[in-house]
Amino acid sequence: MSAKGEKTRESILNASYGLFARKGFKQVTMKDVCEVTNMSRGGLYSHFSSTGQLFEALLERMTEKDAMDFREQMENKIPAVVILDDVFQRMENEMKNPQDSLSMAMYEYAEIVNSDVMERLNKISEKKWKQLLLYGIENGEFQNVNVDGIVNTILYSYQGVRMWSRIISMKPKVFHSITENIKTQLLGGAQR
Amino acid sequence: MSAKGEKTRESILNASYGLFARKGFKQVTMKDVCEVTNMSRGGLYSHFSSTGQLFEALLERMTEKDAMDFREQMENKIPAVVILDDVFQRMENEMKNPQDSLSMAMYEYAEIVNSDVMERLNKISEKKWKQLLLYGIENGEFQNVNVDGIVNTILYSYQGVRMWSRIISMKPKVFHSITENIKTQLLGGAQR
Repeated sequence: MSAKGEKTRESILNASYGLFARKGFKQVTMKDVCEVTNMSRGGLYSHFSSTGQLFEALLERMTEKDAMDFREQMENKIPAVVILDDVFQRMENEMKNPQDSLSMAMYEYAEIVNSDVMERLNKISEKKWKQLLLYGIENGEFQNVNVDGIVNTILYSYQGVRMWSRIISMKPKVFHSITENIKTQLLGGAQR
Repeated sequence: MSAKGEKTRESILNASYGLFARKGFKQVTMKDVCEVTNMSRGGLYSHFSSTGQLFEALLERMTEKDAMDFREQMENKIPAVVILDDVFQRMENEMKNPQDSLSMAMYEYAEIVNSDVMERLNKISEKKWKQLLLYGIENGEFQNVNVDGIVNTILYSYQGVRMWSRIISMKPKVFHSITENIKTQLLGGAQR
């Protein structure tokens, strides 16, 4: 794809994010996407043939970007604890904006569309976290913890808080207490 | 309410559980409830005036029953670790049946209805878990852990797995790895 095409594609993904966060998946139409992107139908269809294709591309970009960030930081020998603090901080910040969550859209998408995209992206996230924990353990920064248990705790407590912050009013300290508890396990600090 | 009325009410709640689990909240009508309960419209309305009232009663009954079970076990001086194993086992069993989850219905209900029911029930669950952990700590069975952190980890990783088990195929070992990790923290077993 040309640089210009790539740029247009990016701007479509950026603009449609809010649509899916706000409306879920089912209620978003290609017409909505045309509106938020200020594009003609023809212009939009030359990039994406359906909201499903667009939504998958959006999820893939997010997941791959995150995984790449981790990889780069590890390659640059950034301490595991710095990478961890950084990502926990970002996750805690996301929690402040429940309206930006794609949870609902992902859920609806999975109910409607028979696709392995969620499985695939979930595996990428799992792998990313596993690598960070193993990197920290090898460095001697992290305790020799049960890696699978902690990775699953991080992934699913994040999803649980993200979802529930749209159901009840959720204080930032809720997710913070979870990340602090995980840090205690990883760093082997005195139990409080 | 008469004993017979109470019994009918219970059987309505039991029968409608599956409806909400399967269809979410929005798509369930009082007519659906009449069908699954084999009741007339008049009969049903003498117990519940709307699907909202019925759904709230269902959630309340579940939450209060769980909290009462915990309280009784503690009053009977059952060891905290036995209570914990028992409830983790039940949670793990629930995970085997993603189709029985009310997550989706709760989510939809919260989006549509302005009610404090979710906040209230969430507080009951939080309190129940807090009491169990404090009971175990006082007994000397559990380590002196960060109670809020662990309670939130339990509540939200449960919700996250419950939700995601409807999005991807989830092996039982995923939630098991989370409960094992929490047990390691509580019992202070050697880190693996």
